[in-house]
Amino acid sequence: MQETVSLNLEMLEEAVEARDGSGLLRVVESLHYADIARFQESLSDHDEVEFLVRIIGPVKYASVLAELPEELVESSLYCFNTTDKRLLFAELSDDDLTDVLRALSEVKRSEMLGILGRKDKELVRALLRYDEDTAGGWMTTQIGRVSGDMTVKKALESLRVNLESTDTLSRIFVVSDEGKLEGRIRLRDLAFNTWDTPISDITYSEEHPILATADQEEVAMTFKKYDATIVAVVDESNRLLGVVTHDDAMEIAEQESTEDMEMIAGLSGEQSESSYLYTTVFTHFKRRFWWLLGLAFLAVASGYVMLRFENVLSGIYLLSLFLPMVIAAGGNTGGQAATMVIRAMALGELTPSDSAKVAWKEFRLGALLGSLLAVTIFIVCAALLPVFRAPLPDGVSYLAFGFAVSLSLGLQVMFSTLIGALLPLLARSLKLDPAVIAAPAITTVVDAIGMVIYFVTAQAILGL
Amino acid sequence: MQETVSLNLEMLEEAVEARDGSGLLRVVESLHYADIARFQESLSDHDEVEFLVRIIGPVKYASVLAELPEELVESSLYCFNTTDKRLLFAELSDDDLTDVLRALSEVKRSEMLGILGRKDKELVRALLRYDEDTAGGWMTTQIGRVSGDMTVKKALESLRVNLESTDTLSRIFVVSDEGKLEGRIRLRDLAFNTWDTPISDITYSEEHPILATADQEEVAMTFKKYDATIVAVVDESNRLLGVVTHDDAMEIAEQESTEDMEMIAGLSGEQSESSYLYTTVFTHFKRRFWWLLGLAFLAVASGYVMLRFENVLSGIYLLSLFLPMVIAAGGNTGGQAATMVIRAMALGELTPSDSAKVAWKEFRLGALLGSLLAVTIFIVCAALLPVFRAPLPDGVSYLAFGFAVSLSLGLQVMFSTLIGALLPLLARSLKLDPAVIAAPAITTVVDAIGMVIYFVTAQAILGL
Repeated sequence: MQETVSLNLEMLEEAVEARDGSGLLRVVESLHYADIARFQESLSDHDEVEFLVRIIGPVKYASVLAELPEELVESSLYCFNTTDKRLLFAELSDDDLTDVLRALSEVKRSEMLGILGRKDKELVRALLRYDEDTAGGWMTTQIGRVSGDMTVKKALESLRVNLESTDTLSRIFVVSDEGKLEGRIRLRDLAFNTWDTPISDITYSEEHPILATADQEEVAMTFKKYDATIVAVVDESNRLLGVVTHDDAMEIAEQESTEDMEMIAGLSGEQSESSYLYTTVFTHFKRRFWWLLGLAFLAVASGYVMLRFENVLSGIYLLSLFLPMVIAAGGNTGGQAATMVIRAMALGELTPSDSAKVAWKEFRLGALLGSLLAVTIFIVCAALLPVFRAPLPDGVSYLAFGFAVSLSLGLQVMFSTLIGALLPLLARSLKLDPAVIAAPAITTVVDAIGMVIYFVTAQAILGL
Repeated sequence: MQETVSLNLEMLEEAVEARDGSGLLRVVESLHYADIARFQESLSDHDEVEFLVRIIGPVKYASVLAELPEELVESSLYCFNTTDKRLLFAELSDDDLTDVLRALSEVKRSEMLGILGRKDKELVRALLRYDEDTAGGWMTTQIGRVSGDMTVKKALESLRVNLESTDTLSRIFVVSDEGKLEGRIRLRDLAFNTWDTPISDITYSEEHPILATADQEEVAMTFKKYDATIVAVVDESNRLLGVVTHDDAMEIAEQESTEDMEMIAGLSGEQSESSYLYTTVFTHFKRRFWWLLGLAFLAVASGYVMLRFENVLSGIYLLSLFLPMVIAAGGNTGGQAATMVIRAMALGELTPSDSAKVAWKEFRLGALLGSLLAVTIFIVCAALLPVFRAPLPDGVSYLAFGFAVSLSLGLQVMFSTLIGALLPLLARSLKLDPAVIAAPAITTVVDAIGMVIYFVTAQAILGL
C-alpha cells in the first residue's frame, strides 16, 4: 500500500513539473490529503506550489491546507482569489479554520476575518481567544445539541435540521436551556429506540468534561486515562462550549513527547511544524546554539577544577587514563535518572510530592550501581595495570591507585544519580517544565562535581 | 475534578485499611476503573489487595484488571474462584481477555483457557498467535459484519441479533461471502436512510486497512496520518480479521515515544508496565547498569588519548582549562543532532534514503555552529586570558593559544554534529532501531575523537 502511495507521489511530481493539469487532477484523486500536504512541503519553487494549489481548487484543497505546517499556510492560501478563499473557508471545520487564521500575519488575519460571514466571524473570533495550547484552542464547536425533554423523534428531527457537518452526529449532547452540560446520548440509542422514548431516558452522564482553559497536556491525559473518543469542553459555569476529538489528543500527546525529547537533548524554542528536512538550517541553528554556548561556558568550571589540581595530575599522570571514565559515568547515570523521572512525570506517574520516595529509590539505585561499577573497575585496575606495567610514582601501589579510582567512580555515580533524578522534580515544583533541566546541563554540572571528587579522593588516598 | 478523585482515593484507602466492605463499594461506585487500578498498584500488602479485589467482585473488577500492569495480573485474577473467574472473563472484550491471558505464566494460561467456553477459547487462541507488538496483537474481533446485498432493514436486524457488545455498532463492515473486506458503513447512514436502501449504496471504501502482521509502529502511523477512529485489520488475502481502535493507537504512540526516549538516554531492556515508583530498585538497576558499564570501558579510550599526549598537557597546562569544554561541546551537539534525527524517523519524516540530504544539512549546521562557537571562544580567550595573567610558557602567545583552542572546538562541533546525525540513520539502514545508538554512546565516541582533535591541534599550532 505504501508503494502505491510512493508511485502516485512520483506521478504527482511529474504532473507538476510538466504543468499537466488534467494529469494532476487524476492522480490527486487517488491520494490522501495528508500525502498531498507532505508533497507540497517538498516543493521549493513557488510557481509549482501555485500550480498545484490552483489546479486542486479551493474545495478540495481545504483539507490539504489544514494539514500544512504553519509556515506554508499564508502563501498557499493567497494562491486563491477572494471568492475561492470563501469557498475554501466554507469547507473547513471551525477548529481548522481557526488554526488557518492563527497561522496568518495579523494584517492578513483581519483581512480574512473580513471576508467571513457574520456568524463564522463571531465563532472564529471566540475560538481565537483561547490559547493554542489549551482545550479551548483545540476544540471544535460543531456538535449536536438536544434537550432532555425531547423525544427520540424530536431529537432526530432537530439533528437533521441542524446537520451542518456529518461529524456532529457522533457528538450529541444534552444541554439545559442555559446551555449547561447535562449529558450525552449515542446515535445508536436514537437509532434503536422507539420514537416516543424520552431523551432523558437514554442520556449518559458526561463524566470527564474539561475546562476550556485547561492545558493541552491535561486534555491528552484525560483521553488516555478514560480511553475517550471525544471530551466535552465547558466553561466555569459548566456551559458546553465544544469538544476535542481523539485525533487531536493523539497530536497533542505526540507534540508533548517530541517537546520533552528535544528539551532533554538541549534544544531550545518551539519545534517547527515543518518536518526535519524542510526546516531551514538557520531555524535548526537557532534551536541548538544557545544551549551549546551556555554549556560551553559552564564546562569551563570543570576545566578550572582540573587546572587547580595540576599537582595531583602531574604527580600521578596515570590518573588521566581513568579521568574521562569517572566524569562520563556521572553524566550517563544522571541522564538516565533524569529521563526516567521526566517521562514518569509526563505520564502522570509522579509529582513533586513524591520527591522523598524518588530520592530514596534513586539513593539505593545509585549506591547499587556505584558499588558494582566500583568493584568491577577495582578488579580491572588491580589485575591489568601491573600486567601493562602502567607507570606509577614510587610509594603508590596499584591497589591503592585502583582503590582511589574506583572509590571516586562509586561516589560520582551515587551523587549523579541522585542529582539527575531530583533536579527535574525541583524544576516542576518551581512550576517549570521538568524537561527544562536538559540532560546536557545535568551532565555538565556533574562533570565538574566528578572532577572535584576524582582529584580530592586521589589526593586523600594517594597522599599528594 | 482532580481533587474529587484524590478525595475518593483517600476514602478508598481508609475503607481498605479498615476492611470496611460497604464503605469500599460506595466509594468504588464513584471512581473510574483506571483510578482503581492505579490505587491497587500502590498497595503492597497482599491481604489488602485480596480484600479490594473480592469486594469489588468479578463483574466490576474486569475493567480494573484490564488496566493493571502485567506483573500484577496473575495474583489479582487468582483472588477469585473458578466460577468468578468465568464471570470476569465474560465481561472482558476479546483483546483485553487475550492480554490478561498473555500476562499469565504458561501453566496458568492453559488452566485459564480450560475454563473458557469453546468459542472463546478458539478466539483467544487465534489472537494469542499474533505477536503482542503487531496489529493482530492489538486488534479486537468484536465488529459488526453485514453483506453488500442486504437492505438497511435487513442490516439493522442482523446487527441487533449479533449485538454482542455495544462497541461493535461503531465498527460495521461490509464483507463478501468469503469474508473479504468490501468497505464500511456508518451507523448514521443506517439511521437516516429508508429501510429499503441497499447497503451497497451507503458503503464507503475502507482506504487504509492494515495487515495483521504489521508492526505496531505502522498502526500508530496509520491512525495519525488519516486521523482514523478505527483501522481494519486484514490477512494477506484481504479477509477482515478485526479492528484496532484509536485508544490502542494512542497507547502505542506513547509506548514508542517512551521507548525511544529511554533508549536515547541509554536505558536497556523493555520498559516495565508498572509505573516508576512501583518498579523495584533491582528492575531499574538492570535497565541502567549495562550501558553504564559498557560506556565506562569505552571512556578509557579517551583516557588513553590523554595519557599519550601527556607531553602536550604538561607543556601547556592551561590547556586543561578548556579541555572539558571542547570535549563536552561535541557530546552535546552530537546528542542534539541524534535526537532530532531519531525523532524525525519515528514520526515518519525521514528514512535512510534521505541520508545524503541529512548529511548536507548537518554539515552546514555543524559548520555554522562550530564557527560561531569558535569565534566566541577565541574572543573570550584573547580578551580575558591576559587580564587573568593565565600562565603560558614562553613563546606561546595568548592569540595562538586562543586560536588552537577555538579551532579544535569548531572542528569537534562539526564532526560531532555529523556523527550524531548519521549514526542513527546507519542503525536504521542496518535494520536496527535508530534509538539504539544511545546519546551517551555517541557522546563517548565523540569524546575520544575530541580529545585527539584537541591535542593534535594544540601540538600543531603551538609547536610542542
